[in-house]
Amino acid sequence: MIEVALFGAGRIGKIHAANLVKQPGVKLKYVVDVHAPSAEALAAEHGATVTSVEAAFADPSIGAVVIGSSTDTHADLILRAAQAGKHIFCEKPVDLDVARAKACAEAVAKAGVTALIGFQRRYDPTFAAVKARIESGEIGTPEVLVVTSRDPGAPPVNYIKSSGGIFKDMLIHDFDIFRWILDDEAVSVYAQGSCLVDPAIAEAGDVDTTAVTIRTKSGRLCQINTSRRAAYGYDQRFEVMGSKGMLQAGNHRPTEVTAYTAEKVTSDLPEHFFLERYRNAYAIEMAHFVEAITNGTPVKTTVADGLKALELAEAATLSWKEGRIVNL
Amino acid sequence: MIEVALFGAGRIGKIHAANLVKQPGVKLKYVVDVHAPSAEALAAEHGATVTSVEAAFADPSIGAVVIGSSTDTHADLILRAAQAGKHIFCEKPVDLDVARAKACAEAVAKAGVTALIGFQRRYDPTFAAVKARIESGEIGTPEVLVVTSRDPGAPPVNYIKSSGGIFKDMLIHDFDIFRWILDDEAVSVYAQGSCLVDPAIAEAGDVDTTAVTIRTKSGRLCQINTSRRAAYGYDQRFEVMGSKGMLQAGNHRPTEVTAYTAEKVTSDLPEHFFLERYRNAYAIEMAHFVEAITNGTPVKTTVADGLKALELAEAATLSWKEGRIVNL
Amino acid sequence: MIEVALFGAGRIGKIHAANLVKQPGVKLKYVVDVHAPSAEALAAEHGATVTSVEAAFADPSIGAVVIGSSTDTHADLILRAAQAGKHIFCEKPVDLDVARAKACAEAVAKAGVTALIGFQRRYDPTFAAVKARIESGEIGTPEVLVVTSRDPGAPPVNYIKSSGGIFKDMLIHDFDIFRWILDDEAVSVYAQGSCLVDPAIAEAGDVDTTAVTIRTKSGRLCQINTSRRAAYGYDQRFEVMGSKGMLQAGNHRPTEVTAYTAEKVTSDLPEHFFLERYRNAYAIEMAHFVEAITNGTPVKTTVADGLKALELAEAATLSWKEGRIVNL
Amino acid sequence: MIEVALFGAGRIGKIHAANLVKQPGVKLKYVVDVHAPSAEALAAEHGATVTSVEAAFADPSIGAVVIGSSTDTHADLILRAAQAGKHIFCEKPVDLDVARAKACAEAVAKAGVTALIGFQRRYDPTFAAVKARIESGEIGTPEVLVVTSRDPGAPPVNYIKSSGGIFKDMLIHDFDIFRWILDDEAVSVYAQGSCLVDPAIAEAGDVDTTAVTIRTKSGRLCQINTSRRAAYGYDQRFEVMGSKGMLQAGNHRPTEVTAYTAEKVTSDLPEHFFLERYRNAYAIEMAHFVEAITNGTPVKTTVADGLKALELAEAATLSWKEGRIVNL
Repeated sequence: MIEVALFGAGRIGKIHAANLVKQPGVKLKYVVDVHAPSAEALAAEHGATVTSVEAAFADPSIGAVVIGSSTDTHADLILRAAQAGKHIFCEKPVDLDVARAKACAEAVAKAGVTALIGFQRRYDPTFAAVKARIESGEIGTPEVLVVTSRDPGAPPVNYIKSSGGIFKDMLIHDFDIFRWILDDEAVSVYAQGSCLVDPAIAEAGDVDTTAVTIRTKSGRLCQINTSRRAAYGYDQRFEVMGSKGMLQAGNHRPTEVTAYTAEKVTSDLPEHFFLERYRNAYAIEMAHFVEAITNGTPVKTTVADGLKALELAEAATLSWKEGRIVNL
Repeated sequence: MIEVALFGAGRIGKIHAANLVKQPGVKLKYVVDVHAPSAEALAAEHGATVTSVEAAFADPSIGAVVIGSSTDTHADLILRAAQAGKHIFCEKPVDLDVARAKACAEAVAKAGVTALIGFQRRYDPTFAAVKARIESGEIGTPEVLVVTSRDPGAPPVNYIKSSGGIFKDMLIHDFDIFRWILDDEAVSVYAQGSCLVDPAIAEAGDVDTTAVTIRTKSGRLCQINTSRRAAYGYDQRFEVMGSKGMLQAGNHRPTEVTAYTAEKVTSDLPEHFFLERYRNAYAIEMAHFVEAITNGTPVKTTVADGLKALELAEAATLSWKEGRIVNL
Repeated sequence: MIEVALFGAGRIGKIHAANLVKQPGVKLKYVVDVHAPSAEALAAEHGATVTSVEAAFADPSIGAVVIGSSTDTHADLILRAAQAGKHIFCEKPVDLDVARAKACAEAVAKAGVTALIGFQRRYDPTFAAVKARIESGEIGTPEVLVVTSRDPGAPPVNYIKSSGGIFKDMLIHDFDIFRWILDDEAVSVYAQGSCLVDPAIAEAGDVDTTAVTIRTKSGRLCQINTSRRAAYGYDQRFEVMGSKGMLQAGNHRPTEVTAYTAEKVTSDLPEHFFLERYRNAYAIEMAHFVEAITNGTPVKTTVADGLKALELAEAATLSWKEGRIVNL
Repeated sequence: MIEVALFGAGRIGKIHAANLVKQPGVKLKYVVDVHAPSAEALAAEHGATVTSVEAAFADPSIGAVVIGSSTDTHADLILRAAQAGKHIFCEKPVDLDVARAKACAEAVAKAGVTALIGFQRRYDPTFAAVKARIESGEIGTPEVLVVTSRDPGAPPVNYIKSSGGIFKDMLIHDFDIFRWILDDEAVSVYAQGSCLVDPAIAEAGDVDTTAVTIRTKSGRLCQINTSRRAAYGYDQRFEVMGSKGMLQAGNHRPTEVTAYTAEKVTSDLPEHFFLERYRNAYAIEMAHFVEAITNGTPVKTTVADGLKALELAEAATLSWKEGRIVNL
């Protein structure tokens, strides 16, 4: 039985807790959150105990930690967990600072603990099927990747101010998709950004709409387009064209109802946001983590992946800010 | 806390057990099955105890029973549960005999217990959305219903021999869909049947392919087509046309991947069979049952519904056997 | 050069004229219509001459006739054309009376002229592709056919009164689809009908909504559902399930635009009515006819097919009127 | 009656000839082609006469010319037609040289003749519907455009050598779509290119796979991805996201057949190449031209549009060659 401490009892913490307690061989022992009522409610729901960061790390019976607290706490908690020899499940991003993320990668490697970074999209059944089918050779050599990634609405400007900017906060997922799907590394990044949704976002020094182009070592091309606001909800698609064909990953929708009226044929909007769209992905991700720490097998989304995605996000930010192509 | 006894530890019993233990306010206390190892394994998985039918009914702490054992046990268990004042969740069909099913309906009514019959399709998000949208008036008055219901493969002939025939065993679900969606009662039933899949089914006195037409009191028309075997898997669709439009309920598929190759554009087959297709429906059904017995609210799928569907199945069987239209 | 006389300058006559003049090796010489202005306008458009039925048949230079006049003129014109040794393209139905249709079939056979009956659906690229793919063995042995056939709106009641009833007027196309796709003959027909669209249709002794079941010699099953009015337009679909899979023929739509708004995902309604939906089919049908009479090759849709479809329509009418199964 | 001379009797010349002769009020008088047998065959098909460039321009009865000859002849023929006061229908591009294209625009303006450049995609029913629906306000203000444009296979390398490069030869259509759909002008262009299909294309100094990003004056973003070879055929899609929703223009396919087999659900590949995909567009384009010269109304795709698209192609070529962002 592996005992686990969870940091963060907010929206994502609740999801990870619910998925964690369904796994065999693990027990959620502690919940830690700066907001005491949240910690207490979540702990009560799962028969866990509220405690402090210090106490959690000091308890030798804790074998693993799940980090779902705010981004600025990630690196510190990773470093402490590595030092304490505890396995780590940490939400993306590792950190907003590349040097600190590198330090995390090194600490984890040195400690020899398992560390999974929460790029949950890789565990989504649709996205994972595309990856598996590329690997099976179904479309030959991948050549072009087009990623569309749009949120249903922009977060509060206060959140944006401390988010590290749209490239680190939002596109970091898309940069990970790029590396995973094309299985190649970037040699150049070009990022265009525009503020079309809300002028307050521009005042906060950020953009809400982006268009990124990446060229890989082997000459493959990737285009990413994102927006902080799609009127029709959460839009998470990509398509990859290879020498023998194309695979498209489409949106999921709540029901398979089609309606024919005097005006139009209509079907459902996509699943509304990430909690709905990636519900299965989060569950599969947690099962994968528990299996990895139970069996000592490697995880699919490592701190090194988190670092690579962050480096792309940093390059994209630079490209956008300075209006130039950034070579890597 | 409502304590529950589960009868039947087979495929469907396992699903109901897993869904039951997720509900707040209930506890799976007993598992009963003639096959002891199955009962023991399932009981162990959920911290329940293996016991006998008699002991389960004799325990006054048991507030509800879930019946997932073989069809020939349903009526007896319903009658005993009603007599013992325990709430009932029972898989379809109530019984293969209309008189016995009627007796069950009367016993349940007299006892005043809640009794849900497992027409899980009504709880499927896609099917339920169609029903809700009809009720909202989106397609005006419903006029024509077309139901397509095909299994991926025929069950063993031994099963078919004791199944009551395809109309009671398989189409009973479709007859329930008919009543629910058109919200009307049948005045005539015509059933055609053919043995096209496996001659052994004909030797067992049954058919594997059917075409049923029902006319309702208000002149609405319903056509049902079924097969014991679809090469492409489980096919569960219906469409209802009304005075102002049409609603279609389509199949669900595992992923939203589309592939373009030199030959074709391809997408996934439907979810393979009922365990996959109705996974969500079973969970919602159980939550609905627990909510009903907790709050004393009515259930959506009653023994009366089970009886009505059975009467249609009996009429269809008669129509097929005697080659005539059966008026109700 | 084959010179052609066209009977009927109405809606369908115009289409046939336009398609005819595009064919190599033929010339539209005469247009005949009881309504002189229509005949004159259409003749002028294509450089043809207006004449009478008698004159058209008396002209030995006329090698073929196209019959697009009202149904009650078909048999007479077919018989005259056969007698005169002229090839025949005639709109469905051959006649509303089986005996007269039979006489036409015999006269045509005796005369040795080519005679095509306008079951244009067989020439539709989508429908024809399904037929070809069945013949290629893609779905094994066909077993079940489901035909959906709905008009956007009911014709005037005066038309209905002289139409021969919905089974001869509207379903005759579907009966032809049945024979063509299942490549089998009916042994029994059961037809339900209801008047749900317009009470005036019931007063005229007809129905507007039907559900027909046909069983074939080899036990295959076919269900047809039709309505005189679909709020969303013209609905022309069928699906055929075989031992190895299923083929669906879907509706065509004007554009491939999909719209995502805050409420729904929408796409186009089907092509509005038969002139739009079967525009290509009519063109291909005429090219097939001209090719047949030029090369002396057989046509795909013969008077015998027209007769068979009419017999099914008569059986369905009887089934509906007498409330019984009709064996053939 | 407007008499017309056609230059070019190749693949596209044949299409324009066939569409031209269907228009009321026009007559195809001359066919001109350096390859005499082609000119003769096409002239014979439509009852036209073969002549020389000089004779065609010298004939005062010629009111309009259709230019479908090789790209290097376009500018010269446009200038001569303008000087002779004849209306012009010219295939894209105007010329590979911006200065010459400008001269054409000026000559046409000065002469006051109607001149249509063959951006046939604007006349495609699907694409035109998207444009009309944007203008109706359905998706609010357009913000992001993603264009996918792929050919089924690369042309011969000899063609590529004199094509002006992929940006002028192939993407010129996509640059026109960009201007038309976003209704805005570019301020910067960034083009990535790669040779992934055929090394001979790289040896010829060109690329076969591109990724272009354009920013407009009002900050709108456009991404274009193209390939000379898609294994699954001709891929012509775009989607435009606006403040209130998204419109997608999808591929057309030959039939609406869907097949379900034991392995997959399959549908047709897109229409194979531009002759099939844009068959309707070419017909509508020619009708629009004839209507414009008959009624003196403006055309939708002008020489000015041709010039603007060429400038974008030139900027993209520069961006790709010099590895930098090009500001306009």
